[in-house]
Amino acid sequence: MSINRQIVLASRPQGEPSADNFRLVESPLAPPEQLADGQVLVRHHFLSLDPYMRGRMSEGKSYAQPQPLNEVMIGGTVGEVIASRHPQYAVGDKVVGMGGWQEYAVVNAAQPGLLRKVDTTHIPLSAYLGAVGMPGVTAWYGLMKICEPRAGGTISVSAASGAVGSAVGQLAKSRGCRVVGFAGGPDKCRYVVEELGFDACIDYRQHATLDSLQAALREAAPQGIDGHFENVGGMVLDAVLLQMNAFGRIAVCGMIAGYNGEPIPLRHPQMILTSRLRVEGFIVSEHMEVWPEALKELGTLVATGRLKYRESVAQGLASAPEAFIGLLKGRNFGKQLVKLI
Amino acid sequence: MSINRQIVLASRPQGEPSADNFRLVESPLAPPEQLADGQVLVRHHFLSLDPYMRGRMSEGKSYAQPQPLNEVMIGGTVGEVIASRHPQYAVGDKVVGMGGWQEYAVVNAAQPGLLRKVDTTHIPLSAYLGAVGMPGVTAWYGLMKICEPRAGGTISVSAASGAVGSAVGQLAKSRGCRVVGFAGGPDKCRYVVEELGFDACIDYRQHATLDSLQAALREAAPQGIDGHFENVGGMVLDAVLLQMNAFGRIAVCGMIAGYNGEPIPLRHPQMILTSRLRVEGFIVSEHMEVWPEALKELGTLVATGRLKYRESVAQGLASAPEAFIGLLKGRNFGKQLVKLI
Repeated sequence: MSINRQIVLASRPQGEPSADNFRLVESPLAPPEQLADGQVLVRHHFLSLDPYMRGRMSEGKSYAQPQPLNEVMIGGTVGEVIASRHPQYAVGDKVVGMGGWQEYAVVNAAQPGLLRKVDTTHIPLSAYLGAVGMPGVTAWYGLMKICEPRAGGTISVSAASGAVGSAVGQLAKSRGCRVVGFAGGPDKCRYVVEELGFDACIDYRQHATLDSLQAALREAAPQGIDGHFENVGGMVLDAVLLQMNAFGRIAVCGMIAGYNGEPIPLRHPQMILTSRLRVEGFIVSEHMEVWPEALKELGTLVATGRLKYRESVAQGLASAPEAFIGLLKGRNFGKQLVKLI
Repeated sequence: MSINRQIVLASRPQGEPSADNFRLVESPLAPPEQLADGQVLVRHHFLSLDPYMRGRMSEGKSYAQPQPLNEVMIGGTVGEVIASRHPQYAVGDKVVGMGGWQEYAVVNAAQPGLLRKVDTTHIPLSAYLGAVGMPGVTAWYGLMKICEPRAGGTISVSAASGAVGSAVGQLAKSRGCRVVGFAGGPDKCRYVVEELGFDACIDYRQHATLDSLQAALREAAPQGIDGHFENVGGMVLDAVLLQMNAFGRIAVCGMIAGYNGEPIPLRHPQMILTSRLRVEGFIVSEHMEVWPEALKELGTLVATGRLKYRESVAQGLASAPEAFIGLLKGRNFGKQLVKLI
């Protein structure tokens, strides 16, 4: 009998999560011949780490059920079918799913939406967790359905070097927009401009005050901002509010909390009225209708090299908690993955 | 030669406006026979005082040009034609326009949008400055186009006894919604529930803390809030954010500033994401396409007694500055007017 290593949520964090909140466990992996009808056994190659997981670790009001204690942490995964009792899946198929923080998963492939076969001829398997996966579709939805970019307009995005932000900016560039990013540190900013082709990137760490950040933004977006994609919240969002053009749109995809989990106030909410803005929060899993269209465009762009992305890859399941904590602190550079094989 | 008494903006306020910011002047009124072709001379019966005028008094970034110094304060007016050189206007016609803070106005009636004849058979003249005028259409637009009320849902509105708020609530009731108001003081709250037919009204003055206000709101809106119409901002908006249902809508029509003109922070912006809200600012003069439909419904409701409203009437042009200052402090009860005749 094989062993399946798993990471479970051991306790809920007070404020910032720590390694203590997780526990590595080993479970027996039933042999393939014990699969039930319709089940597929997947060996995970990559595990996706995403900011939304932080919200699930707490019990407070959120848009989703909290992650149960002592169960395998949820998470997106890509892998390979190593045994199948479902006619549409064969051994060797590459698949994307929500297998969680573990090395193997038994998936009921008959249930719609749990597993999807992917083609790795022109697209690397890991990209299905990033630019051609949930982060990419998140970027696509918020930009296209909320910001509604127009050629000649200006789009800004926070966490610009990340999995979502980098796709937002490149999609906006492909629509003929001027694109301004926010990122933490000179390396990320250089990458965003030189590699991803943004018009400007503001290193928010260089700006201790809102006045200073706002001055930098005025220079980077001299015509004002027509659409903003918010991955972070806090001071960047206030600076953006003050620089938005009339009838601008803000897609709210992420909002950090303060160090102790308390919300960070918005200092200039009156700009929503002054500039007649539309500010809209969304989570992409509630808009499954756009996934086919979004994945088609994202897949084509990645396969033809027109959508670039970067990955931070941690090695081995045991490294997942530290990699996740680093992600929350902005230590990753691009899409954070854990390589399991 | 007659005299036209006028109030001009004498200086811009630092913080709260005072009577010193205004000056009463007397100008000669040219005799009717000197009207140019297409001009109409209107004697004002009522002047409208509205919160938006505060924004115009300052020079800061706003959605409109500032009120020029030493010129007649802008403002909506209703009155009677006393001389006309335009074929569509006759002496005795009742008209609504933007005549400003003065007793008479010469209007170029040939220019579209400056003057509109109104029927006072079933609707009092003053109502065209309130429920069947700009405040009524403001209520209609924000409720219908942003909040999108559905029967059985819950709608909340701040400044519920005011010209806009009272119309929002009654329109929402007519759509089958549960309606919760916020108002300052027991008299206004009683009026909102007993006279206007709201299901509940919260006296925000009874709640010194957000926790207390939130507890009251949980009781008044036990199923959560689906749409909110914001006339004020500040703590009420934070309490509402915490009680909004998923996919709720917030129409932002007014946002007070602090005592010194500084913006009041929003403490719980993360709820925009958590509850996937849409928050949208608007000013009704940018949506002229809805005016005919809105005025038709509002006029019918007022003429048939199904839309109630209350007026605070100050007497004489000289009383306008103090009445306006009182309006900003919430001392009015219903639509604030100045009676000039």
